[in-house]
Amino acid sequence: MRAVDIIIKKRDGQELSREEIRFFIAGFTDGSITDYQAAAWAMAVLLNGMSAAETTELTLAMAESGETLDLSGVVDLALDKHSTGGVGDKTTLVVEPVLAACGCRVGKMSGRGLGFSGGTLDKLESIPGYRNDLSREEFLKQLKDVGLVLTGQTGDLAPADGKLYALRDVTGTVDSLPLIASSIMSKKIAAGAQRIVLDVKVGLGAFMTSLEAARALAETMVAIAGRAGRKAVALLSDMNQPLGYAVGNALEVKEALDTLRGGGPADFREHCLEVAAHLLILAEVESDLPAARQRAATTLEDGSALERFRVLVQAQGGDVSYVDDPDKLPKAPLIEEVPAPQSGYLSTIHAREIGESAVELGAGRAKKGDPIDHSVGFVVHHKVGDQVEQGQPLFTVHANDPAKLQAAVARVLAAHHWSDRPVEPLPLFYGTVE
Amino acid sequence: MRAVDIIIKKRDGQELSREEIRFFIAGFTDGSITDYQAAAWAMAVLLNGMSAAETTELTLAMAESGETLDLSGVVDLALDKHSTGGVGDKTTLVVEPVLAACGCRVGKMSGRGLGFSGGTLDKLESIPGYRNDLSREEFLKQLKDVGLVLTGQTGDLAPADGKLYALRDVTGTVDSLPLIASSIMSKKIAAGAQRIVLDVKVGLGAFMTSLEAARALAETMVAIAGRAGRKAVALLSDMNQPLGYAVGNALEVKEALDTLRGGGPADFREHCLEVAAHLLILAEVESDLPAARQRAATTLEDGSALERFRVLVQAQGGDVSYVDDPDKLPKAPLIEEVPAPQSGYLSTIHAREIGESAVELGAGRAKKGDPIDHSVGFVVHHKVGDQVEQGQPLFTVHANDPAKLQAAVARVLAAHHWSDRPVEPLPLFYGTVE
Repeated sequence: MRAVDIIIKKRDGQELSREEIRFFIAGFTDGSITDYQAAAWAMAVLLNGMSAAETTELTLAMAESGETLDLSGVVDLALDKHSTGGVGDKTTLVVEPVLAACGCRVGKMSGRGLGFSGGTLDKLESIPGYRNDLSREEFLKQLKDVGLVLTGQTGDLAPADGKLYALRDVTGTVDSLPLIASSIMSKKIAAGAQRIVLDVKVGLGAFMTSLEAARALAETMVAIAGRAGRKAVALLSDMNQPLGYAVGNALEVKEALDTLRGGGPADFREHCLEVAAHLLILAEVESDLPAARQRAATTLEDGSALERFRVLVQAQGGDVSYVDDPDKLPKAPLIEEVPAPQSGYLSTIHAREIGESAVELGAGRAKKGDPIDHSVGFVVHHKVGDQVEQGQPLFTVHANDPAKLQAAVARVLAAHHWSDRPVEPLPLFYGTVE
Repeated sequence: MRAVDIIIKKRDGQELSREEIRFFIAGFTDGSITDYQAAAWAMAVLLNGMSAAETTELTLAMAESGETLDLSGVVDLALDKHSTGGVGDKTTLVVEPVLAACGCRVGKMSGRGLGFSGGTLDKLESIPGYRNDLSREEFLKQLKDVGLVLTGQTGDLAPADGKLYALRDVTGTVDSLPLIASSIMSKKIAAGAQRIVLDVKVGLGAFMTSLEAARALAETMVAIAGRAGRKAVALLSDMNQPLGYAVGNALEVKEALDTLRGGGPADFREHCLEVAAHLLILAEVESDLPAARQRAATTLEDGSALERFRVLVQAQGGDVSYVDDPDKLPKAPLIEEVPAPQSGYLSTIHAREIGESAVELGAGRAKKGDPIDHSVGFVVHHKVGDQVEQGQPLFTVHANDPAKLQAAVARVLAAHHWSDRPVEPLPLFYGTVE
């Protein structure tokens, strides 16, 4: 078998066999197939597509390209969730403790933010001492003893995916449905996930801006899971406006803690309950959605989910006084509440603009490895459809620099669009794929 | 400007600007744009194509990526010819001396054979002492003093093309019309050519097997020449059966010498006269084809073209006694004449099979740098359409090894297909593009 023949086959629109895909990914992982061959192949995949069978084989080949985690000795059914990334998405911080409070053991590896999209690890590091670098052994021990883990990737999971992603980023081959789907699913499968809720964001502040593209991605990932002997449910969720009100690491942790205390923004709470309910059904803890939602809601109201979060923070070395008193979380030196410049109905609160403005404030990173400021960000005060009077608070900026504050005010003001006539609120979800 | 944005633009089917193409090729040449970026870009070009304007800009960017030759001080109009490669194609060995005998100064850089297709440099090296490695200064001096040069590439012409071709070869991106056309034309333009005859081979023994593909390539190259301020004419010529009878380096030199002496195979002589006539018109030496053909034919009949070839060999260090007595040329130890196994009309003499069989005998190379044996090859004794009686000589094998001889006999016998009914001879040309 020769790499060039596999490239030519895909270039000519033919379906690659399991053996050809395995050969290509194994060779790419060990370096016998070069970066330039993988780049040409990735472009051919992007332009000619892949069948469901090919995409599944690619996922499994990447999943098995390095270490894999087997959680079967520690949990009954290994649960996982994945968000395709958005603005203000602090769902994991609430859903994982809820699941734990419902009696599930959950060990999850999360990622960092990149570009306008935030990441769970960055948010957690707002809590002093919190460790995101558990070893494989620590991960397994905590999962067994505490029943809840939330950390960065342990070990060398799916190295082929890491290598291919870095290559795709600089060769114009990111926007390929089979490559995106296999990248996400290979990491989940390598991490041992058996039941997965995929939170596929769609809208202005998501990587997928059209419902058709989001649905196609969701269907592809759910199909991969099924063919790989796993089970996944995908929720198509709105990401036109920020999820909840808070955007920025410490601000989002605070909002998650509010929610764990039974409060928090209605949309965010609702989103978390829906994700949690689907996971409870996949975990076979509940058999219908209303009951699952009720059970999840109870853990927010009776404090049991908050208690699980507190235990998690303690287990991973974080200072639990920040959980007990969220006002201790990092605070920006400059806080400015911006009033509505006019009266009317909010027709758009452009999530991507707000996400990018947060990056400019220092909440995120333009490229891997950039330092971030956990204190900065925004709290928007409204949702699309709200009627707002001129002079009412529109949003609050948390900044560490006057010039950046100025720029953020202007950019986020422009991200709010107005209508004279009533505007329908945005839905939370556009559908479910299972 | 960023390489990745240029790749994405081409990926999305948009037209690249002159500046973008220049940026990409300059970066690729100096290494600031990586091989994997160029590979992804080449695949996008292959799958999405390029406009005439883009292909011209790519050609010029590659032509200007290194040294260029300016012949304007030495010749009135710098002539060149290029064959897209075939089996038994020794045209240059005849056409260049013919042009010189017609009073044109001609300096040509030729290439080596690769795969089933032979190369002029390998043929010339059948003559002991012949130097193919003239320096730029030697090239210019000989062109001025002798009026005829035939050598390998001098200096670092179109290095971007060399680099890109090597990359295309291992990334499945060879078969792209704009990339093939720009590769050929960039070298011609870098070598200073102003008037060019493109001998575009089509058929079983050519890289282009369909007339449509050959015509498209011809039209693209002629258009590039025009846009680049040069002038080219393309001849679409048959390469289903070998050109002439001889295939193999010394055997082809002998056939070329026969032709220069006024003999030689009718099809080959005719092919050479047509190519030479178009060049004489481009050179503004003659103004109509019949007169140009007549003038070229005269140089074969009066010995003036042969005399020019002799002067060329002498100027480049070759032993002219091999020109005077072609029987001195390298001879294979094993020579076997193979009789026709049946009677009938020849319907196919599969050029590519014969070319590949010659490579197996040692006449060509499977990969760059392989050694070759100048003595081995074939002389076929017929053309498609000939009526042959069982037992008449069909072809002669010249080999250096009994096992190879056996294999060659079997393969070339199978390359001859028969018909019970009369078969039309193949045309020499399918058309002209100018």
